[in-house]
Order: sequence, then structure tokens, then C-alpha cells
Amino acid sequence: MLKVGIIGVGTVGASVANILEENKDIITARSGLEIVVTKGVVNNLSKDRGVNIPLSDNVDDILDDDEIDVVVELMGGVDEPFRVVKKALENKKAVVTANKALLAYHRYDLQELAQDLPFEYEASVAGGIPIINALRDGLSANHIESMQGIMNGTCNYMMTKMMNEGVSFDEILKESQELGYAEADPEFDIGGFDAAHKLLILASIAYGIDAKPDDILIEGIKEVRNEDIDFAKEFGYVIKLLGIAKKDGDKVELRVHSALIKKEDMIAKIDGVMNAISVVGDKVGETLYYGPGAGGDATASAVVANIIDIARAGKSSPMLGFDKPLESNLVLKSRDEIVSKYYLRINVKDKSGVLASVTKLFADFNISIDALLQRPTKDSMANLLLTTHETKEKNLQDVLLELEKFDFVDSKPVMIRIV
Amino acid sequence: MLKVGIIGVGTVGASVANILEENKDIITARSGLEIVVTKGVVNNLSKDRGVNIPLSDNVDDILDDDEIDVVVELMGGVDEPFRVVKKALENKKAVVTANKALLAYHRYDLQELAQDLPFEYEASVAGGIPIINALRDGLSANHIESMQGIMNGTCNYMMTKMMNEGVSFDEILKESQELGYAEADPEFDIGGFDAAHKLLILASIAYGIDAKPDDILIEGIKEVRNEDIDFAKEFGYVIKLLGIAKKDGDKVELRVHSALIKKEDMIAKIDGVMNAISVVGDKVGETLYYGPGAGGDATASAVVANIIDIARAGKSSPMLGFDKPLESNLVLKSRDEIVSKYYLRINVKDKSGVLASVTKLFADFNISIDALLQRPTKDSMANLLLTTHETKEKNLQDVLLELEKFDFVDSKPVMIRIV
Repeated sequence: MLKVGIIGVGTVGASVANILEENKDIITARSGLEIVVTKGVVNNLSKDRGVNIPLSDNVDDILDDDEIDVVVELMGGVDEPFRVVKKALENKKAVVTANKALLAYHRYDLQELAQDLPFEYEASVAGGIPIINALRDGLSANHIESMQGIMNGTCNYMMTKMMNEGVSFDEILKESQELGYAEADPEFDIGGFDAAHKLLILASIAYGIDAKPDDILIEGIKEVRNEDIDFAKEFGYVIKLLGIAKKDGDKVELRVHSALIKKEDMIAKIDGVMNAISVVGDKVGETLYYGPGAGGDATASAVVANIIDIARAGKSSPMLGFDKPLESNLVLKSRDEIVSKYYLRINVKDKSGVLASVTKLFADFNISIDALLQRPTKDSMANLLLTTHETKEKNLQDVLLELEKFDFVDSKPVMIRIV
Repeated sequence: MLKVGIIGVGTVGASVANILEENKDIITARSGLEIVVTKGVVNNLSKDRGVNIPLSDNVDDILDDDEIDVVVELMGGVDEPFRVVKKALENKKAVVTANKALLAYHRYDLQELAQDLPFEYEASVAGGIPIINALRDGLSANHIESMQGIMNGTCNYMMTKMMNEGVSFDEILKESQELGYAEADPEFDIGGFDAAHKLLILASIAYGIDAKPDDILIEGIKEVRNEDIDFAKEFGYVIKLLGIAKKDGDKVELRVHSALIKKEDMIAKIDGVMNAISVVGDKVGETLYYGPGAGGDATASAVVANIIDIARAGKSSPMLGFDKPLESNLVLKSRDEIVSKYYLRINVKDKSGVLASVTKLFADFNISIDALLQRPTKDSMANLLLTTHETKEKNLQDVLLELEKFDFVDSKPVMIRIV
């Protein structure tokens, strides 16, 4: 028998307990052991959790319980969960977590602390999709050339609705909040931070790169407006929030931002709250993984799979997928060096000479313009919509600063990278 | 150090040897061991294989070599490979195979023979896509409700070309053979047998169902013509060769056939030679796995990943994913009981009373017609194109027999199931 303690019995924790009970037949057949949740820990004991397990409000009731083999950490946050899983490992317990923030900051500490103990975290990236499994085990023969993912269902739901139904950003944000897809404070999702945590975890497995959220480019979808959507449609693109990892020689770029993607790409076909991650390996080529990135049962499906892994084999892979440093010469590429094509929306006063000034500025910075559209808005204003050929991020950021200095430029220009 | 012998050094075998050499850095970091191919076995020693390993033409040079830890079987066929891997297991060697035919017939024998020895076969289904990994390990918490897959790249390439470019079946088959996608004798691909072998492997992992190719419905794409493609387009479908597994109470249906799929479905969006498998679990919902289903390096990527698994952990999962019988009450549903919607193309003489006779026949069999189109062809003939509401396969097969008896029905009607 394998005994499990769950710290944090919210939606996901309750699903974990219930799946282990409801699907006991196949889980026992697949794991070779009876898996039983013997304890749960919650903050507030007076709330009904809909589970048949003894509850406590003291984490040490699980951490110090010699009978418990596996600690499932579903608390949320960073510092307190780190203290908790550290103690669990010190007490020789296997750990399963769905906590991406914890891993975004502490995955290398945890890899060191875990040593020979199983430490699994499939649910931390893309919920129910077994992407850690695929990347760490299924694609282990490959140098990973790039990864591109829709890693935040809330943003993808919003972008899909804007593309398909023409609703405004503010309307769809409000609707997402009412549906429970977006939090009351949506910054973590629409600012790109949630996707960034997931990207950092994948980047460690693929490249062994040690980066924290502050080290990488993180932007969200807040600037995307219907004008941009219309432009995208007209030129055969869709707009998505993407997490991107790309290897270029001995440098790896990691970035999260909204992006124009050619509508023929598989990743462009992913609609609604679903997640999908495309991985290009040097040997296998492109593979893609699609499914629900959130939800109690979907996330719990991944947590329970990890518990079954532990029942079957104890520790089968190193936590991040490597023992020795992986590709030890790789370094993080600085944001300034990123090379991309760009889309810009510049709101200008509709007067003579504007187009000449703007195009001269781009020429001065050696940025060549690919497509350009001017569209009147209101009150003798116009939107200048343009795409560039490839240029360095630094170069484009400098142009953005210069653009703002023109007296005919009304507000901060909006930039979306083209993938 | 982990020593590997490769039996069958063709395209995939050579890729396995070369990947282990070219990607030695990350493979060693990930597996924790140096993995070395010490021997290869081929039929014809005079042919250059493009590999740096000692070759022999005697399988026993590998099977009886006490130094070799892992035997990679890439021979093709059924009986001889079975004898070979059996002896490898008897000699206490781990086995990795990409041989779907071997597994379609002998997977339960092999599960029993393997016992505590690793026996891995990721490359046997969908080439480079780690679908075995996902289904056996990543989704292990779920009862699998259904699976639908594009498991044969040749057929998908042909169907995509017919859909997008309107070329005829015969033209595209010829082109596929010239491109090397289809064999000189294409029956194994376009008759659905290749996909069926893969479906049977997946069905064992998902359901523990023991079925052989003869036990299940296997049809191919040979009947699909441009008229059907046109109809599909008009009514919002695409046509694909699908492998389908579906649980219905305590019965599982397994079938391979061409199918009309709503064009909004993820699986309908998979174009060209790519493979994709959609899996619906009772807890996780739908996840989908996409990538190259064939090709030397892509297939070898999966073989090498299995070798790395063995280096890391020895045996980490039971071969088919379960120790005890999995869902022991499940039985294979008979073909006759399958329930589906159907599309029919009936070539008829264009004379009065035909439509009345046909519709009366359907009414007599209690099959209700959903949509109906009559289109003139040539020489006072017409195509009657119709779709039905759900009915039992037996019922529809009976109608097909009756239809052939009408003197105004010119040739065997064509039937495609609607998914």
C-alpha cells in the first residue's frame, strides 16, 4: 500500500482524493499497489471539501507522519510550499506538486534536495497534458531546437473570442471573469506571468537553463485591440499569447508575449481555453501536445499519474531529466539580441508629412518595412499599421522610443512580435 | 556503460546508431550512463549501412553476447522477430522494438515473457510521437473513454491531397509511391492494416483488450473518390483514415476505416504525412498528440528514448501498463453492434421511381435519412449521395446487400462512416 498526504485540499486536491477513490480499480491494476490518501491539510477546517479523508489544519500532521510515503503539495505560493516540500524531502517522502511558481523559483534547489527521492510535477505545466513526461522521457534522444506553447487557457480563450466574434478586450475580460476563467485580479494571467513560470520549467528540462522570471522577457495580451485582430485576419495571421524557447548556437532565448502566427501553423489552430505545446527536436522534428491546461479533474489527472509513477518505480528519471549538467555551454540570450519580425500600430494625427517622417525613422535605424496600412480612426486621427522584416529587438525598442517623441504620435505605439 | 545490439540495421537501425553517437552529450547527461552500440546484425553484409558499428549476419552474435544489455529489434515481420526477442528475454536482455506487427500478434505473450525485464516499444505506434508514454504513464489515472487517431501517414497524405487539390485517388497513389510514402504494394497502408496494428497496441494499454487483427473491423481508403470528397466539403466534413477505439459500458469497439469528420475537430486539422492521436479520459478530457509517424530519425528518436528509459530506471512500468487484469469485465464489441451515422454513394440509372425505391428500402429497415443529394454523372446515370442518422452496422450492411439487388443500381454502393 502507498500512503498519500495532500497539503491543500482545494479544487485540485479534492479531485486527487476523489480520482484515487473513483478509479481505484484501474489505478491499482496499473500501479501494482493500493494507493490511499490517509490525510489532508487545509487552512480552514470549517469549509466542506467534498472528500472522504481525515482533515487537519497543521502541515506537520502530514510531514511528521512516518506512515505517509508521498506528500502532494497543492498550497500555491512560493516560500511556504518550499519550506513544506523541503521538510517532506528531509523526512524521506516522495513529493508531487502542481505548483509552477514554486518550480519557477526553486526547481534547481529542489533537484538538489530530492537526490534519490521521487519529485514529480507533471501538473505544473499545461494541466492535464503529459508534457513533462513527453519532454523529459519521450523526447530524451533529442537536442531541443525550439518550443512554442499556448500555456495559458484564459488568454487563449480571450484571444479566440476576439478573433472569432469581434468582441472587445474589455468585454471579453469581463466575461472571462464572470465565467471563472480569469481571476478578479487577472494580472497574473493576462500579464504573461503564469505562462512564464511554465516556460521556465520546460526550459530547464529541454536545455538545463537556470533562469528566473525576472531574467526573461514577459509581456501579456493587454495591448491587443480589435484593430490588431482585424489586421491579423487580413494578412493571414492569428494572435495568441505564446511562451517561446529557441536555441540559437550556444544561446537560448526565452520569452512570453502576444504574437502574430501564420494561420496554417498547428499552434494557430488551438482555440478556446485549451493549451498546446509544440516541441521541435533535432531528430524527431515537430511534435505537438494538446489538451486542457486547467480544471480540477484535468490537473488532478496529472497529479495522480505522478503518484502511480512513484508506486510503480520509485524514482525513474532525475527530477529535471539530467544528472550531469545538460548542454553546459548554453547561456540565456539577452532580450536585446532577440531577432524577430514586428507588427506596429501607431496612432497618429492625420496630417501631411507623417508617413514620410515615420518611414525615414525606420530607414535611419535600418529596419525595412514589409507591409504598411493607414486607416483613419476618428477626429482626424489615423492608425498606421505596419510589419517589419527581421531586426534586433534592441533596434526596434529604440525606434519605439523615437516614435513617441514625434508630436503627431498620440499615444504609446503598440508592438506585437511576429512568429 | 550500457551496451546495445541492433538487429536490423536499415533506415531506422542506422538512425538509432547515429543518434546515439551524434547526441552522445545530452544522452549521457540524461541517462546517467554511456550508451554504446557494440554490434549490429544485417541480412546482407555487402551493403553499406552508413554506421560505425561492427556488423554480423548472425542474430546469435547479439543474442548470445553476454556483454550486451539491450537488444533493439528492427527486423520487421512476425514469426522470426518473435523467436529473436523471446531468446533475448530468455538470455536476460532488455528489449526495445519498433515492430508493430510483432506486437499486434504477440504483445500478451511478450508481456508474460518479459516479467521483470524491460520491454519497450514506443516507436511501434505513431513513430516519433511519444504516445505509448502518454497513454501508459501520463494518463494512467483515467479510464479511457475513446481514442481516435490518424495512424497512417501515407493515407493521410493521400486524403489531404485529394481534399486540397482535387487530384484523383489513382494519381495521388502513384505520386505517393514515387515519393516513397507508399510501398510498391500499398495494400498494407491503404487497406488499413498498418493502422490496425497500432490501434490494437493502444487498445491493450487503454483497456487491456486482447484482440488480433482478424477480430476487428479493418477497411481502408480504396473506395474514396472525388465525388465523396466534394460531398464532404459541401457538408463541412473532411475524410480521413481513422483508427477508433470506443468504450461503451462493458464493451469496447475497435475499428479502422475511412471516416467523415466534422472539419472543426482537432483531428480533422491534421494534414499531410503527419500522425495524431486524440485520447479522451474520464478525468482529463481530451488530449491530443501530433507529430511525424514515420521516417528514420523520428522513429529512431522513440527507440533511443526507450534505451534511455532503460538506462535510467531498468523496468519502470509493466510492459502494457498493468500487472493485474485491467478492467477485466471488458469485451470486444462485435462489428454488427457498432452504431454509427453513415454516408452512402449509390450509382444509379437516372430513371423514374429510383428515389422512391431507395427511400422505401431505408424506411423498411428503420434507417432514417439525414441528407440526400442526387447528382447526374454521365450516360443517364446519377450518383445518389446520402447520410443517415445513427443506426446499427448490421442494419446498414443488410441495406447495402439489398441495394445491390436493385436492377437500377449499377455498382457496389460505397459507404463511409461518419464520426
